[in-house]
Amino acid sequence: MRAKEFQQRRSILGTDLEERKLDGLLVFSRANIQYLCGFTGDNGILFINSERAVLFTDPRFEIQAADQTGDHVTVNIVRGPLVAGLCHWLKKRVVLKLGFEKAKISFENYEALHSGLPRKTTLLPVAGMVEMRRMVKSFEEVRLIRHSVTICSEAFSETARNLRPGIRENELAAELEYRMRKLGAQKPAFDTIVASGPRSALPHAEPTHKPLTPNKLILVDMGASKDGYSSDMTRMIFFGTPGARVRSLYAAVLEAQLAALAAVREGNTAGDVDSAARRVLESHGLGRAFVHSTGHGLGLEIHEPPRLGQKESTRLQAGMAITIEPGVYLQGFGGIRIEDTVVVKHRGCEVLTPTPKELLTL
Amino acid sequence: MRAKEFQQRRSILGTDLEERKLDGLLVFSRANIQYLCGFTGDNGILFINSERAVLFTDPRFEIQAADQTGDHVTVNIVRGPLVAGLCHWLKKRVVLKLGFEKAKISFENYEALHSGLPRKTTLLPVAGMVEMRRMVKSFEEVRLIRHSVTICSEAFSETARNLRPGIRENELAAELEYRMRKLGAQKPAFDTIVASGPRSALPHAEPTHKPLTPNKLILVDMGASKDGYSSDMTRMIFFGTPGARVRSLYAAVLEAQLAALAAVREGNTAGDVDSAARRVLESHGLGRAFVHSTGHGLGLEIHEPPRLGQKESTRLQAGMAITIEPGVYLQGFGGIRIEDTVVVKHRGCEVLTPTPKELLTL
Repeated sequence: MRAKEFQQRRSILGTDLEERKLDGLLVFSRANIQYLCGFTGDNGILFINSERAVLFTDPRFEIQAADQTGDHVTVNIVRGPLVAGLCHWLKKRVVLKLGFEKAKISFENYEALHSGLPRKTTLLPVAGMVEMRRMVKSFEEVRLIRHSVTICSEAFSETARNLRPGIRENELAAELEYRMRKLGAQKPAFDTIVASGPRSALPHAEPTHKPLTPNKLILVDMGASKDGYSSDMTRMIFFGTPGARVRSLYAAVLEAQLAALAAVREGNTAGDVDSAARRVLESHGLGRAFVHSTGHGLGLEIHEPPRLGQKESTRLQAGMAITIEPGVYLQGFGGIRIEDTVVVKHRGCEVLTPTPKELLTL
Repeated sequence: MRAKEFQQRRSILGTDLEERKLDGLLVFSRANIQYLCGFTGDNGILFINSERAVLFTDPRFEIQAADQTGDHVTVNIVRGPLVAGLCHWLKKRVVLKLGFEKAKISFENYEALHSGLPRKTTLLPVAGMVEMRRMVKSFEEVRLIRHSVTICSEAFSETARNLRPGIRENELAAELEYRMRKLGAQKPAFDTIVASGPRSALPHAEPTHKPLTPNKLILVDMGASKDGYSSDMTRMIFFGTPGARVRSLYAAVLEAQLAALAAVREGNTAGDVDSAARRVLESHGLGRAFVHSTGHGLGLEIHEPPRLGQKESTRLQAGMAITIEPGVYLQGFGGIRIEDTVVVKHRGCEVLTPTPKELLTL
């Protein structure tokens, strides 16, 4: 990410802070810290306002922080608890109204912060301020997400080419993750799901030692993390010829997924997209089998706003990156989900995921 | 883990609660929830006391929760925020003094909990209650950690066998993680570190596209996650013949690691072990180059108590699983770290890691 993009982000955040009459924000979320200053270490607090950005981290990250943040950020190396170092620093500054990310700080750290602050400073809880700005991706961010999606899909298709019954769920997950890394991913965006038979009805199944056998639903949910940005895709595989029940369930989920995609455009709400998928599944008597929301934003995190759930009123904006992933889950039988990563456009959306959506029969 | 082991854990926790006159504990830490009831999903709150264990989770985890928790746990499926479901449940119970894990709950959830509780209930912050009990591992847990260590070391030695200059840092990381999975790991215990040349001086480096070349330090820090339990190992690789400076730095770190291992035994403090390593490095003029602590506990989490840092007063007990990992980091030159996973014994320790400790020259 170029220095200019960081400057823009901080300048927009500066406006948000002014609107709320805050003299600064304490950022605890790792993804928000990365978004605002480039630092990716897993121990950091960022103080930020329109004039300055100060990163507090520990000695393990001294060299990395200097490398990643550039001139515009002051790095403050703290030995011991970061909150103590932050409070010490604040005592020498005039910060009267200080926002903090209430969902990203533990109660314990809040207590330490509250008791260690100079008396002149008042803490004000803030929720989702940076996340709201992260929802709409820049051109460069869409490029990174597209790259991540390409890696994910290419790894899937390379792996599927040589897939035979007998491979275990966890072996297939290992293959998929290995190929994503060979294609340039730093890691999977989340624990790859490979679940077969009735276990495919667990929306978040962990792969087991079970071999994949013919005539069973096989669900694969995977994503790459590449240069900080995530992709997310679910596809179904079937060894053999699916029977009537699998075919009709699959057709219903695909119809729901296409209906949801058709509802994605700037100006529609997140809830509109969810309704589009839900209505289709309800029309097939599968409303109660659809136990989660239709999708979620993704970017620096695999789950970020907006959430595409029932009655969610967030308006879609061009540049948002989201998943569209309706599914049905029937205990004892199995589950079917179809998921793409897409970018919202002024008139519709662009489906980034190039992998065919048909049930992959082998 | 057998039902009996869960019963024992809950019974011990019941004693801890009685001592503090608490009528129940709210557990928010994922590892603590897994330890106390077996559930591994990533959205859960556990209410627990000596009489009952009630798990709150969302519909995505309904089947998984039923599978993992057995008869002794009541599963409460909540649509919407878990804290709201929890408060609703508490209103029908008599719980007067309720502990909560203050380091594991966000300030936001604390607020929701505080405002949603029945008036009769008082919240009391608790820190590390379950973690303190998790420090000493059962026979079965040591078996699982040993298995995880074996997978990690076997993957390292399989990969090292065919290692040639030219492989990129991220390719080597991908190979190591792939082999761990093929050997039965569910995933890496943490993001594998492969860092060469001056980048090895970053204690938490992310692998890059840089090819590994002769006459440079190469640091590999890796671990497996197998059936929930972690391993952790660091080894150094060198293509070619190391010069005098590398050899003498390596000898100093190895001397420090052996000194720390010799200090591990029941009754010594965590700080004693750290001092043993630190004294050796100081005697070589490398005290300031050793920027972190000597080790940490590991188990269900890759970092858990005890911390083996300076002046840490925690007494080692037989059955604790810890890492011993002194290192030196010289900006512009590189870093050297040697790390094993060990179990504390009454008179000494058992080094679980079977991988030779010499600098691996290829």
